[in-house]
Amino acid sequence: MSEHNYTVAELAERFGLAFQGDGARRISGVGTLASAGPDQLSFLSNSKYAAQLKATRAGVVVLREENLADCPTAALVAPDPYVTYARLAALFERLPAAPRGVHPSAVVAGGAKVSASASIGPHCVIEDGAVVEDGAVLGPHCIVGPGCVVGAQSRLVARVTLVTRVTLGRRVLVHPGAVIGSDGFGLAFERDHWVKIPQLGGVRIGDDCEIGANTTIDRGALEDTVLEEDVRLDNQIQIAHNVYIGAHTAMAGCAAVAGSAKIGRYCQIGGNAGVLGHLELADRVTITAKSLVTHSIREPGEYSSGVPLQDNRQWRKNAARFKHLDEYARRLSALEKDSNDE
Amino acid sequence: MSEHNYTVAELAERFGLAFQGDGARRISGVGTLASAGPDQLSFLSNSKYAAQLKATRAGVVVLREENLADCPTAALVAPDPYVTYARLAALFERLPAAPRGVHPSAVVAGGAKVSASASIGPHCVIEDGAVVEDGAVLGPHCIVGPGCVVGAQSRLVARVTLVTRVTLGRRVLVHPGAVIGSDGFGLAFERDHWVKIPQLGGVRIGDDCEIGANTTIDRGALEDTVLEEDVRLDNQIQIAHNVYIGAHTAMAGCAAVAGSAKIGRYCQIGGNAGVLGHLELADRVTITAKSLVTHSIREPGEYSSGVPLQDNRQWRKNAARFKHLDEYARRLSALEKDSNDE
Amino acid sequence: MSEHNYTVAELAERFGLAFQGDGARRISGVGTLASAGPDQLSFLSNSKYAAQLKATRAGVVVLREENLADCPTAALVAPDPYVTYARLAALFERLPAAPRGVHPSAVVAGGAKVSASASIGPHCVIEDGAVVEDGAVLGPHCIVGPGCVVGAQSRLVARVTLVTRVTLGRRVLVHPGAVIGSDGFGLAFERDHWVKIPQLGGVRIGDDCEIGANTTIDRGALEDTVLEEDVRLDNQIQIAHNVYIGAHTAMAGCAAVAGSAKIGRYCQIGGNAGVLGHLELADRVTITAKSLVTHSIREPGEYSSGVPLQDNRQWRKNAARFKHLDEYARRLSALEKDSNDE
Repeated sequence: MSEHNYTVAELAERFGLAFQGDGARRISGVGTLASAGPDQLSFLSNSKYAAQLKATRAGVVVLREENLADCPTAALVAPDPYVTYARLAALFERLPAAPRGVHPSAVVAGGAKVSASASIGPHCVIEDGAVVEDGAVLGPHCIVGPGCVVGAQSRLVARVTLVTRVTLGRRVLVHPGAVIGSDGFGLAFERDHWVKIPQLGGVRIGDDCEIGANTTIDRGALEDTVLEEDVRLDNQIQIAHNVYIGAHTAMAGCAAVAGSAKIGRYCQIGGNAGVLGHLELADRVTITAKSLVTHSIREPGEYSSGVPLQDNRQWRKNAARFKHLDEYARRLSALEKDSNDE
Repeated sequence: MSEHNYTVAELAERFGLAFQGDGARRISGVGTLASAGPDQLSFLSNSKYAAQLKATRAGVVVLREENLADCPTAALVAPDPYVTYARLAALFERLPAAPRGVHPSAVVAGGAKVSASASIGPHCVIEDGAVVEDGAVLGPHCIVGPGCVVGAQSRLVARVTLVTRVTLGRRVLVHPGAVIGSDGFGLAFERDHWVKIPQLGGVRIGDDCEIGANTTIDRGALEDTVLEEDVRLDNQIQIAHNVYIGAHTAMAGCAAVAGSAKIGRYCQIGGNAGVLGHLELADRVTITAKSLVTHSIREPGEYSSGVPLQDNRQWRKNAARFKHLDEYARRLSALEKDSNDE
Repeated sequence: MSEHNYTVAELAERFGLAFQGDGARRISGVGTLASAGPDQLSFLSNSKYAAQLKATRAGVVVLREENLADCPTAALVAPDPYVTYARLAALFERLPAAPRGVHPSAVVAGGAKVSASASIGPHCVIEDGAVVEDGAVLGPHCIVGPGCVVGAQSRLVARVTLVTRVTLGRRVLVHPGAVIGSDGFGLAFERDHWVKIPQLGGVRIGDDCEIGANTTIDRGALEDTVLEEDVRLDNQIQIAHNVYIGAHTAMAGCAAVAGSAKIGRYCQIGGNAGVLGHLELADRVTITAKSLVTHSIREPGEYSSGVPLQDNRQWRKNAARFKHLDEYARRLSALEKDSNDE
């Protein structure tokens, strides 16, 4: 565990932080203010937890200068303790070993190009015309299909499938079960049956994107589906063909975007929210959980749909009335007219 | 690329179309009206894009006779350009090679029957009692469990799991991550804990169906879950046990159908829409995105639920009022009574 | 099939039930009242199907004493026929053979501990520091990552991924495509880009839990994501980091729970319902399908949100009015005031 073991003073120096208290204390992990012990680091970012600071048993706490007086132990001072905590915590993360080279059980086609510094895990399949760049790490059971590129330092955790014509940038992180580059859902109706529209585009994913477990991103019909850099997708998200997502946009679990929608930069899409096809969302639009976007949004801001949760019996009464809302509005107007006519 | 290279006259002859312009022009791919170059084919189906036709640089355009006069390049004339485009574009699709036979890394049980003309990709597992028929193609990492049949010319793109007692018809296309034939969710509650109901049925999927990435279709409790022919399911759809889906029905991403529901033919179920268990939907019912079907539908037509998206501050005010809608309706009626009594 | 073949008298004795009719009749399978034949067992639990009892051709029917008089064939009498049926039907389930030992195509790291009585299927990958306990069965393509434990008699049907620090209790059943222990979705925003929060916790899953196909359960940021015993999750459910789910809670397909939410015991969460982050639900709370829980719930009971499905034209009119509900409520109050002032 020696490589995951630092003194408070070493941590302060490494991240350019001021510290208070015992610089020689050794830290070998992280924990919450309530649970961390003397060899662990914790942090105070949300003032809601300020009361926990006074009682913490943590070895060192990352906090803002204003909270320093209340800290009963060593402290590292940072203007944004949550971001600083993120970087510190990464020191204590034990990633699985990823030895350079190709595991003997992997199947690499003759026409694939795999960097000597890449790591290809057990049972991976790298097909003809695929490229895996320097330092990329593929965990077990990944498939890299024809015309796909895994950019340098990217990591496919395990069982990731890149189907066809998918380009990942650098440092892209993809979680298990994700499927990228599957056929878009394109159909033409002919008299009495469906005819499939070939999906001839690809998917382009920018640097530093993260793609969650079991998320699906279809390839374009003619042009590409695109995620700009630093897009962050949680689990079980569905991105249809020819969607375009601007840089730094984040989506929570189970969100879905229909075909050819264009989402701006720095947007935040809530869990299980949906965006209909061909719409455009401006930069810095926030959609709350489970809302459905049915028209383009030109202005930054927060948008919602849905009705509040209620006890089922009360809800039933109100929901039944919803079916007559138009009638009520007309009756209300009629009453007002009567009242004014009097 | 010679096999993906045709003259305009060859395309016209192959599909029985009239053409106009330079029949000797060579076409080697497809593109949108806005992006296609002189060696590419494009199409005009939606009149919304008619303006793009006049400026297109495409080598040839598939269009209706009425648009012929506006076409600055060669044209192929078709009554339904989108359907014709679908067939033409298929000529230019490069599917991964699928050599006959079983990849040496695949595991095929002694009691499995695999046609000599089928292609079994790397790391596939074909279990005892499974059948793979003529010309079927299994990409890498597919699992065909006991009692499963992959029909002739069907294609499991990659990492598809057929669990138990699943029969696929002919020309079925299944995308990566799909799970077909998993246990239905059947539980009986006994005093203080759950008891699992064995799921002893199977799944039957008709000819020409398409199943999207990470879609799940459970097998039946006693009888089978059924998809008739030409059913088209997008990604991340959930089909519960004993659901029955009529021919030519299409469902968009993230739709879900609960146990024993029966969906008619030629239905269209929007993205993330849901159908509760044991309901019946007539033929030609359309459900819009994110709607929840809570009662059976006897008449063809379009059905919806949900409320519109609004700016969050406005929405909050309206949503809060929803909790009192029943009270408002009563107060409105009381006012009307007062007004009539006067 | 001899091992799946019992006389009615043998079944009665095995489960301690009274029976009526021909005890020597041989039963080799199960079916519905409407479809079962003379060598099959059926059951009557829901009185809705009582009419089918009189016409059944089943060899034996499990039913309540009160229905005995209407049964035209042999009967097994049970106070809760559905639970008893569940146990009986399990006799007739043919699970795929699971030979002890490690399939030659599996990759087991030197530092993994696999019980000699466990079954490790084709192409499984068991990584360093993983443990597979007695009698556990891993179907094809399962991955057991570092620090993961598969408890005794647990079954990973096929293609299940346990990523990191996941502990499954005893008799846990996990369906294909499930991903357990993937990174929680934790991000800090720094000026103009996202910084990833390392996810250093794990997942603990209690005895007798069931996890559906393509369901995802993220590991905790610092502490663990927890499912107590006998939690039952259907397909495509998303459980975010640090969620805590009480024993015997069941969730239907496509439900989702956001980070750090705490769900009580004996809750039932409907299909595609959602629970926002950091909320608490008391024991015995039922949430109906597609509802969104936006506040903590302190009292047992049934809760709902949403509006009813309507014909699209009617729905459009009502939905448009929803945008003005707050205004209508004010106008209604004003009218009432006028009316009272008169």
